[in-house]
Amino acid sequence: MKQRLGILLSGRGSNFEAIARNVLNGTLACEIGFVFSNRPEAPGLQLARELGFDVASFPSKGIDRAAFDEQVAKLLHQHRVDLICLAGYMRLLTGGFVSQFSGRILNIHPSLLPAFPGLDAQHQALVHGVKVTGCTVHFVDENLDSGPILLQSPVPVLDNDTVESLSARILREEHRIYSEAIAWVLRGNYRIEGRRVIQT
Amino acid sequence: MKQRLGILLSGRGSNFEAIARNVLNGTLACEIGFVFSNRPEAPGLQLARELGFDVASFPSKGIDRAAFDEQVAKLLHQHRVDLICLAGYMRLLTGGFVSQFSGRILNIHPSLLPAFPGLDAQHQALVHGVKVTGCTVHFVDENLDSGPILLQSPVPVLDNDTVESLSARILREEHRIYSEAIAWVLRGNYRIEGRRVIQT
Repeated sequence: MKQRLGILLSGRGSNFEAIARNVLNGTLACEIGFVFSNRPEAPGLQLARELGFDVASFPSKGIDRAAFDEQVAKLLHQHRVDLICLAGYMRLLTGGFVSQFSGRILNIHPSLLPAFPGLDAQHQALVHGVKVTGCTVHFVDENLDSGPILLQSPVPVLDNDTVESLSARILREEHRIYSEAIAWVLRGNYRIEGRRVIQT
Repeated sequence: MKQRLGILLSGRGSNFEAIARNVLNGTLACEIGFVFSNRPEAPGLQLARELGFDVASFPSKGIDRAAFDEQVAKLLHQHRVDLICLAGYMRLLTGGFVSQFSGRILNIHPSLLPAFPGLDAQHQALVHGVKVTGCTVHFVDENLDSGPILLQSPVPVLDNDTVESLSARILREEHRIYSEAIAWVLRGNYRIEGRRVIQT
């Protein structure tokens, strides 16, 4: 039986789209079991519907964070999701959520962490004047952009870069390494030593 | 007339050696005008002597930081140094020193700054579990590893890396980009916008 991904997204979901393409063309040997968005109007959610995946959405407004995450977790369990992939999910997960899916939540971030965590990482990189930035796939814990790192890819910053041009260059690498990291986690041939994720 | 480099080092001076090689074989069109070490026993200082460069050294023990830096600055002025290159110089420069040579002091650091500033950057990178690290040539200000960045080069971290193997891989890139950055600064075709160093 194929392993099942759960996708959490808040916006365009371009990383979701890249993952879905790899699932549908057989590059990634798994199923997308469920797609959730905290924003009912998210374009990524619309795409998921069009592709025929099971989807759900409810807004977080006025709901306690722990209660909200508990509802999302319940849906993920109901859909028998093996691995959760955040794809532009603009919420920090509660400790209760993370502990239910310990070591089974991935995120991608548009910088070489630990540099430039948080929002607007590409803008942060430009303002800092780095010549190399990139992207990072990491396990998720309850802190922001802080879990053990699976894969990173460096991307050059050019003198004439804008946030848009730099983001586009990084995004191409995001689409590549996110699927690679998902395949690796699904194969299970890794161990975690301290913060290091080592291939076995 | 050739522009003149001043080198400050505290130890082996492997980056000094790489710079000296490029100066002596004509790859870098400049002279090494002066080599200083705060450690009279530094192997890099011995190499500088053997290569016939003007050298000086006195220990910092018991001397006020500002007074020490003032003595070093005096020697650099006497040797008509145009650009100062730190090559494993294990001292934070005082504001007074930096302001005398504003925009004319370079350093190389074995990480992709702003990640892993300070001592043992390669060890920090291994403990953090990053998959990509590298090195950075930057202008020096009075803060630690914080000035505008000229060049960076990414280097992969391998699962079986030790501090030694990773340091050796980074060092090859250090030797390459430090001379490249020196040549760039000597040509003068750059401008600094905020923290960004832009080629002109």
